[in-house]
Amino acid sequence: MSRRLLKELERSYGFDEVAIVPGDVTINPELTSTKMSIGECTFEAPMLASAMDGTVSPRFAVMMHEMGGLGVLNGEGLYSRYEDPYSILEEITSMPQSEVTEYLQQVYSEPVKENLIGQRVEEIKSAGSTCAIAFTPQNTKRMSPLAVEAGADIIVVQSTVTTARHQSRSYRGLVFSEMIESLSVPVVVGNCVSYGVALELMETGVDGILVGVGPGAACTTREVTGVGVPQVSATLECAAARQDYFHRTGRYVNVITDGGIRTGGDLCKAIASGADGVMVGTPFAQAEEAPGRGYNWGMANAHAELPRGTRIKVGTKATLKEIMYGPTSVTNGTQNLVGALQVAMGMCGAYTIRDFHQAEMVIAPAIKTEGKYFQLAE
Amino acid sequence: MSRRLLKELERSYGFDEVAIVPGDVTINPELTSTKMSIGECTFEAPMLASAMDGTVSPRFAVMMHEMGGLGVLNGEGLYSRYEDPYSILEEITSMPQSEVTEYLQQVYSEPVKENLIGQRVEEIKSAGSTCAIAFTPQNTKRMSPLAVEAGADIIVVQSTVTTARHQSRSYRGLVFSEMIESLSVPVVVGNCVSYGVALELMETGVDGILVGVGPGAACTTREVTGVGVPQVSATLECAAARQDYFHRTGRYVNVITDGGIRTGGDLCKAIASGADGVMVGTPFAQAEEAPGRGYNWGMANAHAELPRGTRIKVGTKATLKEIMYGPTSVTNGTQNLVGALQVAMGMCGAYTIRDFHQAEMVIAPAIKTEGKYFQLAE
Amino acid sequence: MSRRLLKELERSYGFDEVAIVPGDVTINPELTSTKMSIGECTFEAPMLASAMDGTVSPRFAVMMHEMGGLGVLNGEGLYSRYEDPYSILEEITSMPQSEVTEYLQQVYSEPVKENLIGQRVEEIKSAGSTCAIAFTPQNTKRMSPLAVEAGADIIVVQSTVTTARHQSRSYRGLVFSEMIESLSVPVVVGNCVSYGVALELMETGVDGILVGVGPGAACTTREVTGVGVPQVSATLECAAARQDYFHRTGRYVNVITDGGIRTGGDLCKAIASGADGVMVGTPFAQAEEAPGRGYNWGMANAHAELPRGTRIKVGTKATLKEIMYGPTSVTNGTQNLVGALQVAMGMCGAYTIRDFHQAEMVIAPAIKTEGKYFQLAE
Amino acid sequence: MSRRLLKELERSYGFDEVAIVPGDVTINPELTSTKMSIGECTFEAPMLASAMDGTVSPRFAVMMHEMGGLGVLNGEGLYSRYEDPYSILEEITSMPQSEVTEYLQQVYSEPVKENLIGQRVEEIKSAGSTCAIAFTPQNTKRMSPLAVEAGADIIVVQSTVTTARHQSRSYRGLVFSEMIESLSVPVVVGNCVSYGVALELMETGVDGILVGVGPGAACTTREVTGVGVPQVSATLECAAARQDYFHRTGRYVNVITDGGIRTGGDLCKAIASGADGVMVGTPFAQAEEAPGRGYNWGMANAHAELPRGTRIKVGTKATLKEIMYGPTSVTNGTQNLVGALQVAMGMCGAYTIRDFHQAEMVIAPAIKTEGKYFQLAE
Repeated sequence: MSRRLLKELERSYGFDEVAIVPGDVTINPELTSTKMSIGECTFEAPMLASAMDGTVSPRFAVMMHEMGGLGVLNGEGLYSRYEDPYSILEEITSMPQSEVTEYLQQVYSEPVKENLIGQRVEEIKSAGSTCAIAFTPQNTKRMSPLAVEAGADIIVVQSTVTTARHQSRSYRGLVFSEMIESLSVPVVVGNCVSYGVALELMETGVDGILVGVGPGAACTTREVTGVGVPQVSATLECAAARQDYFHRTGRYVNVITDGGIRTGGDLCKAIASGADGVMVGTPFAQAEEAPGRGYNWGMANAHAELPRGTRIKVGTKATLKEIMYGPTSVTNGTQNLVGALQVAMGMCGAYTIRDFHQAEMVIAPAIKTEGKYFQLAE
Repeated sequence: MSRRLLKELERSYGFDEVAIVPGDVTINPELTSTKMSIGECTFEAPMLASAMDGTVSPRFAVMMHEMGGLGVLNGEGLYSRYEDPYSILEEITSMPQSEVTEYLQQVYSEPVKENLIGQRVEEIKSAGSTCAIAFTPQNTKRMSPLAVEAGADIIVVQSTVTTARHQSRSYRGLVFSEMIESLSVPVVVGNCVSYGVALELMETGVDGILVGVGPGAACTTREVTGVGVPQVSATLECAAARQDYFHRTGRYVNVITDGGIRTGGDLCKAIASGADGVMVGTPFAQAEEAPGRGYNWGMANAHAELPRGTRIKVGTKATLKEIMYGPTSVTNGTQNLVGALQVAMGMCGAYTIRDFHQAEMVIAPAIKTEGKYFQLAE
Repeated sequence: MSRRLLKELERSYGFDEVAIVPGDVTINPELTSTKMSIGECTFEAPMLASAMDGTVSPRFAVMMHEMGGLGVLNGEGLYSRYEDPYSILEEITSMPQSEVTEYLQQVYSEPVKENLIGQRVEEIKSAGSTCAIAFTPQNTKRMSPLAVEAGADIIVVQSTVTTARHQSRSYRGLVFSEMIESLSVPVVVGNCVSYGVALELMETGVDGILVGVGPGAACTTREVTGVGVPQVSATLECAAARQDYFHRTGRYVNVITDGGIRTGGDLCKAIASGADGVMVGTPFAQAEEAPGRGYNWGMANAHAELPRGTRIKVGTKATLKEIMYGPTSVTNGTQNLVGALQVAMGMCGAYTIRDFHQAEMVIAPAIKTEGKYFQLAE
Repeated sequence: MSRRLLKELERSYGFDEVAIVPGDVTINPELTSTKMSIGECTFEAPMLASAMDGTVSPRFAVMMHEMGGLGVLNGEGLYSRYEDPYSILEEITSMPQSEVTEYLQQVYSEPVKENLIGQRVEEIKSAGSTCAIAFTPQNTKRMSPLAVEAGADIIVVQSTVTTARHQSRSYRGLVFSEMIESLSVPVVVGNCVSYGVALELMETGVDGILVGVGPGAACTTREVTGVGVPQVSATLECAAARQDYFHRTGRYVNVITDGGIRTGGDLCKAIASGADGVMVGTPFAQAEEAPGRGYNWGMANAHAELPRGTRIKVGTKATLKEIMYGPTSVTNGTQNLVGALQVAMGMCGAYTIRDFHQAEMVIAPAIKTEGKYFQLAE
């Protein structure tokens, strides 16, 4: 019987389902460059720390700069709502799990203080650091000029799902092209996961797009709403859009994979899939210097009626420097992330990030059977 | 060697194997409408509560109406077999697991009292509620007129597998077209899972079909008999039949996915697969108002010789209102189901349920790895 | 680069990866017939009990006959090696797991006594039962005439992998066509898993083939040697050979799926895949009447140098009658297996086993998520 | 929308995802030959013990020779760094897991003593054994002549990923063709996983290639860097290259699958995939005679900045003879590996390893469900 109207579903893949194939040529890791540029800012490490309050404080943003990466401050988080956010952080991180979502819902209902936005930007800039700050699309038009005026170098516009064409009753959808024209700094926008949306966002003039809906460790968007695309497929789609756009216009827009990256292996797979950089939460929240003291949580967690995330215990594992560059004695891939990237690039004969985009990948589900035949000794 | 007679198997998918892709346009959730209509009855929420005795009592059906949904009373359950079903419910829910199937087999061997059918319908109608009541195909011809006479608004004809062409020795197969002509109310029929059967049922004149064989939490049909089709594929098939039938005849028949829905994510995936509504057991059985006091079970559980289901402990989690509309502090998707649907529709730019049928989906197995790198804090 | 010599691998499927699709017509279960014939023997239930010493004793074979099935006695097992096998059975079933393989290796090194073969056959025949007895290919030529002389009705020739063309240094390969001509009773041969081997075996004149390498619960052939094909694919292959052979010659050869069947669902899937019957170990070993007292093991377990199986604890669950025909209060599919088959046939509109071969199947991995949202009550 | 630049990913397979199909002809296992040749050295068993310090000591290499296999000594391991490596081994194997990676990093920072290389080779040769010794590409040019001069029969050049075209700043990449011309003994090189690299390495004149990146039990390369290809696919690729090269040149180069083999089943699958032999760590480290006393670890574990492996507890299970040839009472496939290979070859009608390359394989994920229905008895 004819079933010609049957909807077709394509297979998609996440980090745990793929692997990178070594190249036909190999190079020594010290010959590789992991540089990434956003506008005129250049970063030694292609790593952004997520705009989550347990990950990036103004002080942590300064340390990210010193490490060659970029810490993105949440422009609508605790730092912009409270003169003293640190006592709130202490409450959040000492509360039992059963009560924490309600407490988050409560503390995030405090309004953003516009004066604090500038103050936090200045804290970062006064240390000589590059400053990136994130707003939701609803508030970007109003808040981002305050940040730029105070010296912010990069504006990030971020919500769970962002498109170039948003419809709202209560506010006029943010028109990215207008905003970009009015601001003097590079703009990074997200999140998106598909070829079409990525292309439309690039056409508005943005300098980077954030890729990822649903994969983050502290996020339950996929369980709550069913919406989400695994990160390898999402990155492959958006990178294909970036290539098409680049070939057509000559303008290169950064693709930044955001969410779900826990190990050097994940980081390498994101970049081999076409990302120019990654935005990372959990691994940085594990740094001794992170404000979350071994915990992490997202803004969606504090939604008043439909929270879509949980405070997770990530533990405090090492210094930020060890997490990014080692040395380490940890063998599960969660430390020396940049070193891991260089080793993987070496195995694939990639001198640059763009070379590494050419690496071959295979679908190879991670099957764990060791428990059956041997074990880690105590 | 030739193997031309080899039977071919097609791949099918369940809720945990797919995800919804955000749309090219997004809209604010408050702009979405989740309305569903069956005949002339319109529902704010596209949700039916399952005709299971632990889920829907006459009182619960009234509350479903007040919440904008529809509770379907089991016309052959305890409420039609006993003047006082509540003492039986108390026994069922306080019995040890090892004895409960035998007890169910015993109490469901009590015959249905025809006078009680009308009485239960009147209990629901007297509260001003829409009343839907379910019968098996064997008993529909005899019992449904009694229900309609007492004021029932919708008749549901339900068995594990229902086709338009059933063969029996002991009774003349129910002829749906005859029955529909003789009744003055809309008829919903199920369950089915394939294009062909769905189409044949639609051609008999029914107003809705129930989709799903084997997926329910309290059902072990697939383990016992091997029969069953995962819900996403079953819904895609039946929705394709609905579209073909609609294009040919202009008559729109509701597709209602029944069974296996536990979270907002599952609900959203069912509708994105083409369902106009869902029938839900476990999530409603978790309501404080549910008659099962934290337990749920199906009719197949009471089969005298081959029980195909188990009484499961679902727990009492929240009020019906919180389960349907929130607000909630639970982050695993089991509460504020309608809110979750609106958020998902917003992410896909869908103003209506039929718009949401156009959403793109991908195959994306849910892989859980968090335990390895972090944990929920205590 | 050309990789034209790359070996291609086809996907194969096991019971847990498929499901049966309900038919376009349904019939009442009591209208179905589950009959199977081997030569002139007809069985109400298409079920053979495996030739394993923990499953079939002479007394159990008699009970299988009374239940309408067929118990196959292991012609080279304990019953043919010891005058009093029951004290050995008691030892095996009371021994700690760590010592049992060595003990099995020891007791099965006792030679087969030819006089005991006839004696065991007579025990079965004297009760008026059909008698089937199994030998390995090496010993069939010598031992099977003794069994037939004593009254055996069916000879089973069974080894892990059997082909029509076996090469050996120590004995002349058994020529099936010669053997079949010399014996006056039907012959069932196995095991095999592929179209080509099944066809060649049919061409030797056998009356049935056993399908299955590696899937049995008490068998580790696949772990030890890597050899094995999942049962659904193996059955589909051999059933395609049976159909081709039948269309060409008009002779119908039984396909009997042997191994890996634990539930009614598995049984139904085997038959929907094209089997005319099944050979079952574990479910029958769980009968109160089974000689293994809640344990089961295979001959491969006793191999002196490379044991490929383990004694498993299956437990004692119900009477043989309850396992085959119910009634039962167990809901996981392990009891009332024939009833389950009739229900499944009804859902697919199949009056006979051969009708049921036409049922549609889908690939549908069993994904178990219930633990996350609810639990069986204590 | 066009997505023509989307990167395509091919599916790849590991041992747990495939199975071997029995052949159309079967032969008795004692008719099979498992011989492998490297240059003029012939081995009864196609098994190399890995160049890991917990697996192969000079004494263990002698025992491998006596068993018909080949133990490869790590030419840059503890035996070449310390006059008395045995006290270091004792430290490593008695240290808590939390401290061992740091300790390994420390002891492996001791430089290689060139005089010890010759001394260890002589220890092996003086017992009349074939001697194979492994170096990294960086050190091969300098160290391998010392080994050959002392009597080494086979040189192994091994790093995580090796290509014929390596780029380095600090040393001139090893030119394999020059090295091979300068040495008088066979050379085995690895590791590689793809058709192209395998072919290029063969064209340099090597006698064997090692296949495998990422799969070893003591290796976390895939988690740390994302790089790795499952062993069945890697072997199929390299074997296809070997066949193409052989058809073109008439020279037969050995393909040796290295890593991830834990059972007889894995070994058989590697060879059925096209390997001429296997290199094995964990199973040999479980021998009573292994220097690691029940532990194993790799060189990558000792990397100063980015360790990519862990010391694992493999346990001491049996004598080397029992592991290779049995007899055994263990039924999980970890002992009597050569016996298992012969049984599998018999089931596939393969007289030789090259015959066994023709065996059919299927994709058949290992699904473990036994826990649900029965259990191993205590």
